[in-house]
Amino acid sequence: MPELRQNPITKDWVIIAPERRKRPNQFRHHTVKGKIPKPDREEKDKCPFCPGNEEICGKAVLAYYEEPGEDVQSQWTLRVVQNKFPALVEGKETSRITEGAGNFFIKMNGVGYHEVVIEHPEHFQTIATMPCQSVERILSSYIERYQVLIQKPNVELITIFRNNGPGAGTSLRHPHSQIIASPIIPIHIRHTIEEAVRYFDTMGRCIYCNMIEQEKISGKRLISETEHFIAFAPFSSRSPFETWILPKKHRASFAKTSAIEKKDLARILIDILQRLYYGLDNPDYNYMIHSAPYQEDPADYYHWHLQILPKLYKVAGFELGSGIYLNSASPEENAKYLKEIKPDVLE
Amino acid sequence: MPELRQNPITKDWVIIAPERRKRPNQFRHHTVKGKIPKPDREEKDKCPFCPGNEEICGKAVLAYYEEPGEDVQSQWTLRVVQNKFPALVEGKETSRITEGAGNFFIKMNGVGYHEVVIEHPEHFQTIATMPCQSVERILSSYIERYQVLIQKPNVELITIFRNNGPGAGTSLRHPHSQIIASPIIPIHIRHTIEEAVRYFDTMGRCIYCNMIEQEKISGKRLISETEHFIAFAPFSSRSPFETWILPKKHRASFAKTSAIEKKDLARILIDILQRLYYGLDNPDYNYMIHSAPYQEDPADYYHWHLQILPKLYKVAGFELGSGIYLNSASPEENAKYLKEIKPDVLE
Repeated sequence: MPELRQNPITKDWVIIAPERRKRPNQFRHHTVKGKIPKPDREEKDKCPFCPGNEEICGKAVLAYYEEPGEDVQSQWTLRVVQNKFPALVEGKETSRITEGAGNFFIKMNGVGYHEVVIEHPEHFQTIATMPCQSVERILSSYIERYQVLIQKPNVELITIFRNNGPGAGTSLRHPHSQIIASPIIPIHIRHTIEEAVRYFDTMGRCIYCNMIEQEKISGKRLISETEHFIAFAPFSSRSPFETWILPKKHRASFAKTSAIEKKDLARILIDILQRLYYGLDNPDYNYMIHSAPYQEDPADYYHWHLQILPKLYKVAGFELGSGIYLNSASPEENAKYLKEIKPDVLE
Repeated sequence: MPELRQNPITKDWVIIAPERRKRPNQFRHHTVKGKIPKPDREEKDKCPFCPGNEEICGKAVLAYYEEPGEDVQSQWTLRVVQNKFPALVEGKETSRITEGAGNFFIKMNGVGYHEVVIEHPEHFQTIATMPCQSVERILSSYIERYQVLIQKPNVELITIFRNNGPGAGTSLRHPHSQIIASPIIPIHIRHTIEEAVRYFDTMGRCIYCNMIEQEKISGKRLISETEHFIAFAPFSSRSPFETWILPKKHRASFAKTSAIEKKDLARILIDILQRLYYGLDNPDYNYMIHSAPYQEDPADYYHWHLQILPKLYKVAGFELGSGIYLNSASPEENAKYLKEIKPDVLE
């Protein structure tokens, strides 16, 4: 069973999940300097996410099919399965366990959910090259699973994310995203909420709504816009080509995304990922959906958003030591560069 | 001139320093999947840090020589120079500049100092393979520069760090560390201090001092110990083989390290880095010295420490989205593994 442990000083939580990996000396293999481990199972015929290999991952918790209603496995268009090497696992016991004199250390069972969204049957697809319909399906699965998981006991926060490419931390090329439902609120999210509440109490409005307005007026960091969404390089971008996508209408939780917004979000997501794909030769990237924790929805002060961080930098000693990101690119220049690329979004 | 910009929502600061790098389309070169850029200047004869090439880096702000008193450049044993591509540059103007309606965005000139410690004349050395005398010299230079820089106007925080290997973010193999003096306190350091103060106000003692005591009593995460220092895997390790080194005697600022402690610190630093070197085949790593900010010294609640983070993991979407680190190794098991390795520290 994985464990959640709290740093007694910073109050950060970490997950300790040795089951996911290996014995200490096996870390040696990862240490050949400058070498990223090769994708474990690059070959299509051994890929656990490819059609025909469904038994490797086991039963889907959600699946969509080409012909609705029919349950023919070879015709699935998307599957959501439990992660074979979960960071958190289903369980009821969330009592804190203490260790050391004066209960100095605090830990708990690593309970929660860890699911994988197998986004498409085709091994070599990626969101940038998919038609809208496929991406809408991915978003539908996110919303469906979010709505199911948020109702489970002890789930406080749901993180939906996508690691694209080995530099972004994935060993499987087959297009997939992940969903982790966790039983605690990380302190850095609490701090962000505190700041958002403070702004709301002072200015009487959502700070994210104001940011959207500011970016629309100045236009200099704007990359793309649809009826319901806006995409821009944030003023304080942490890395080259960081991009945020936000719904224009105030909404704290991603789960409340309407059917019309979902269509629109698929379009702007492909739009941005295509600009990165063509502008930067298919870069490795992470994207994360930041949504209000369970108990903070509805909230007038928080606004869900999707952050895309291309892996064009390395977090090194300075960032780790100071917490200040060092970005060697101008957000305004990079936004202009992406804006000039003309994506071709296929219906 | 680099800029410091604040995230209006989280209050994090980032440094925007486009001078350090390239135009937007040049980021394309970094995006070949799975490929870490090769060290730029691997060849010894072109290395800007090697003896004979001193003019590339320019005048040293501090240098040590084999024969003290003599100023023969070829006989230096350590040089500290200004970074050719600084994250922050010397300057006086720290007024905040605002942007947008209602002064929504806040930025300032990127003033500060960014120095490089060229640790040794030999290109292929690294701390794990150096004799004690060389490492004492490195620590002396850290302390000397820290004491000089902390007295400069507007310097609030000094971060000393070392990026070892391309996976840890360095492109130059020649052994070196870096020192950045910044004019702001990052919010995550403020939060850590707040928690430490809260602990002090409740328990009447330094939380780090208590942690040292706990680790000594349990012993299960202890890796090494000297008269003045202790090294252990933290309870809530963020990554496999994370190691902390702390002075046993309470001290808020690294700058106050005594001559005796310095000798001892050199020994335990080599000890730990050798265990990693032999145990994990010379892994890439970052180390960072966390010292109290200028205005927090002396402080009964803060305790300086050195953190070593081997690069055996990739921060991916989950960490970026939730702030929860996912560690696939047990700190206790890894501490045991390192403890069993017998380092050979050369005087």
